[in-house]
Amino acid sequence: MTHCYLRRWAPAVVGAFLPLLLQGQAPPTDDAATLRRIYDEALLRGQAYSELRVLTQTIGGRLAGSPQAAAAVEWAHQLLVRNGMDTVYLQPVRVPHWVRGSDEQGHLLGGATGPEVPLALTALGGSAGTPPEGIAAEVVVVQTLDELRQLGAAVKGKIVFFNRPMDQRFIRTGQAYGAAGDQRRAGPSLAASLGAVGALVRSLSTTTDEFPHTGGTRFEAGQAPIPCAAIATASADRLAAALGQEPSRRLYLKLSCQTLPDKLSYNVVGELRGTLAPDSIVLVGGHLDAWDNGEGAHDDGAGCVHAIEALRLFKTLGLRPRHTLRCVLFMNEENGLAGGLAYADSARTEPHLAALESDAGGFVPRGFGLDGSAAALAQLRSWAPLFEPYWVERFEAGGGGADIGPLRPRGIPLIGFIPDSQRYFDLHHTANDTFDKVNARELHLGCAAIASLLYLIDTHGLPSR
Amino acid sequence: MTHCYLRRWAPAVVGAFLPLLLQGQAPPTDDAATLRRIYDEALLRGQAYSELRVLTQTIGGRLAGSPQAAAAVEWAHQLLVRNGMDTVYLQPVRVPHWVRGSDEQGHLLGGATGPEVPLALTALGGSAGTPPEGIAAEVVVVQTLDELRQLGAAVKGKIVFFNRPMDQRFIRTGQAYGAAGDQRRAGPSLAASLGAVGALVRSLSTTTDEFPHTGGTRFEAGQAPIPCAAIATASADRLAAALGQEPSRRLYLKLSCQTLPDKLSYNVVGELRGTLAPDSIVLVGGHLDAWDNGEGAHDDGAGCVHAIEALRLFKTLGLRPRHTLRCVLFMNEENGLAGGLAYADSARTEPHLAALESDAGGFVPRGFGLDGSAAALAQLRSWAPLFEPYWVERFEAGGGGADIGPLRPRGIPLIGFIPDSQRYFDLHHTANDTFDKVNARELHLGCAAIASLLYLIDTHGLPSR
Repeated sequence: MTHCYLRRWAPAVVGAFLPLLLQGQAPPTDDAATLRRIYDEALLRGQAYSELRVLTQTIGGRLAGSPQAAAAVEWAHQLLVRNGMDTVYLQPVRVPHWVRGSDEQGHLLGGATGPEVPLALTALGGSAGTPPEGIAAEVVVVQTLDELRQLGAAVKGKIVFFNRPMDQRFIRTGQAYGAAGDQRRAGPSLAASLGAVGALVRSLSTTTDEFPHTGGTRFEAGQAPIPCAAIATASADRLAAALGQEPSRRLYLKLSCQTLPDKLSYNVVGELRGTLAPDSIVLVGGHLDAWDNGEGAHDDGAGCVHAIEALRLFKTLGLRPRHTLRCVLFMNEENGLAGGLAYADSARTEPHLAALESDAGGFVPRGFGLDGSAAALAQLRSWAPLFEPYWVERFEAGGGGADIGPLRPRGIPLIGFIPDSQRYFDLHHTANDTFDKVNARELHLGCAAIASLLYLIDTHGLPSR
Repeated sequence: MTHCYLRRWAPAVVGAFLPLLLQGQAPPTDDAATLRRIYDEALLRGQAYSELRVLTQTIGGRLAGSPQAAAAVEWAHQLLVRNGMDTVYLQPVRVPHWVRGSDEQGHLLGGATGPEVPLALTALGGSAGTPPEGIAAEVVVVQTLDELRQLGAAVKGKIVFFNRPMDQRFIRTGQAYGAAGDQRRAGPSLAASLGAVGALVRSLSTTTDEFPHTGGTRFEAGQAPIPCAAIATASADRLAAALGQEPSRRLYLKLSCQTLPDKLSYNVVGELRGTLAPDSIVLVGGHLDAWDNGEGAHDDGAGCVHAIEALRLFKTLGLRPRHTLRCVLFMNEENGLAGGLAYADSARTEPHLAALESDAGGFVPRGFGLDGSAAALAQLRSWAPLFEPYWVERFEAGGGGADIGPLRPRGIPLIGFIPDSQRYFDLHHTANDTFDKVNARELHLGCAAIASLLYLIDTHGLPSR
């Protein structure tokens, strides 16, 4: 692997011969024709799908600090070079290094009303491991954090089981995820503060099956983590039913996860240098890390190849951007956000026209969400007719992405790509988030939609806050 | 199975106690609130997905005339009765009875440039079988029917291989299917008229794999069918490459299909009787038959359960329609359209407010297409704001469905449900069109969208042509 972080090998020729390069540009075409070219190239010769196959099936899950994450950094670096970016570099990021270990299991112990109940579960990122022999304790079932607060010290020595399902009535499943997510994000910490010895969280899932959905959980600074795991929705239903019959049954839990010392890792950055205002950046990105239990196909391999392919489309079609198009593949979105924070810090003096993240899957494009000014939203919506032939219709207020969030205080317009959300939380953070769940056309339509929006922003600008 | 066709067991009570029933109705709510109730019920307690599991996994492929088609008729009849429809009956339909048989195979024979090339293929519906020992002949590759016409008698004694791919640039894949479909529909007949002994048609597919896509083909009245098969896209590429190297290589083809005498089958009809204008019909339907090589999950099991579930939603929510809502599950859409023709004939004196068909898969709803007047389209589009919260945005001119097509001369507005089309032609007419390719939320959102539109048409009417 060729590390060349902080040494940007933009060929000197770009600056010196700018006028010549501009002469060589294709004559300006209208926006509609350019979008059609972008879509045709993506649909006929899109490379994102085959690149995603390598990232997911050859490399696989790639949590920050893992060998797979290092391999993903190398993959992205080589691909951006191969795609002819003007500049490719690695940006150092110090990341947490949590590992799941190979032995995790849990079951409800046999009781008066029935035999042992096997449970499909997996540790949450940030969980403590159990002692090698595991733990066993009674279980307290709660639906909300408030309910747990009211129980207070009554949960001391017990395992808290958060069992509130995602609300299926939301049309955007991400909103249901947000509404149920406090259980996973903050539940184990609250349980620990009340003396619980462990926590189980019903998987944040739109389906009922035996795939546990992992994810990050946070403990307070100085607080000792407790063992905590996501339990698959079907297992959660079984567990709740058994406890309903016999609340005193004890649950056995064994987790082999541990937190190792921080490691050095990288964001991977590739750029097409702007012809007119190269110091001004239009950012497009996804996150390179992914949970270790699956292949990280929709989350967020798809976002990575969306971003990489969007710039390849510019390059292949000879679309020379006015501003510098920067593809950033962030490290450690899933359990720390170190990459997003490191990027914002390193780029603190660079003007950004906009930042777009794809971190909602590789499904059919529905639109974009904007965290920005009313003027920017109006501008975005003025482009809706250009997207109409491609069935991209939603230009919503509110958006962005975790990795670009740290750019928000600077007033930079933040944009989130919105693919269709119906299937995402069936797969998200599970062993089931695999390459075969991605459809080539849906993925390539996403690349084209993103490239098209980058083109319009680069050409027409976007008001900042 | 309880056959009660032509005896409609609408309980007499419906007519006699109509005023009492109306008294018991919920107070009128506004349209937006009703749509929300429909969606909530579909998303929380939708039954379409579990019903589809039975149709696809227990019954499976169900071409007209097959035992599976008979089982599907029974399934639909029992389900409509169980769902509490006011009227359920079977409508007799005489259907063609073509069977694939168990032995179909083909390969390019070994030649000077390489060994035998195995090919994944399957007979087209309507194909003749080969003699038991198969046939072998040279192959003529063409891209278009025009190209074949120009070759004329040069194809005598040969196998014509139609190899024009679907054009990936279309955003609606159905348009690409339409543009390439002449090869399958009319290619074999043209080849036969020029003396060819067989025909192969590149599968009408949006992907490259080894699943051949069957489908119906038509021969002229009085014309003797020749053996003809769909060849999987990956096999087609292999075959074209081998023939490019050595055009004289011969192809072996063995098909065991045959056409048996016509059989008696049925459309299945279930109704919720209208409270104000029961003699006026709002039709919703899909087709019950499906190709025998897969499970017919998206084509058109999904359409059947869309229609059945739409009426169940009315029933469960106590939404009493003003006009009679009639669910029609058509027989023999795939290879004859006998069901659609029989229905149009039997209903020729019944006024229809509108007819809606779902025959484009169980994917996430995008909108509706209308074959009707400008006034009807304007009316449809006036409802767009009601659908906006559910991300149903497309109200297109042009639509309908094959089975409701025979109603067109009467000026009845014809509506086609438009789900997202990106994945449909990966699966359509293949062994891969199976239940596991259907997503429960996507399917249930379709049921809700269809029920919502039926509600609006029933409440506000729709101008005829």
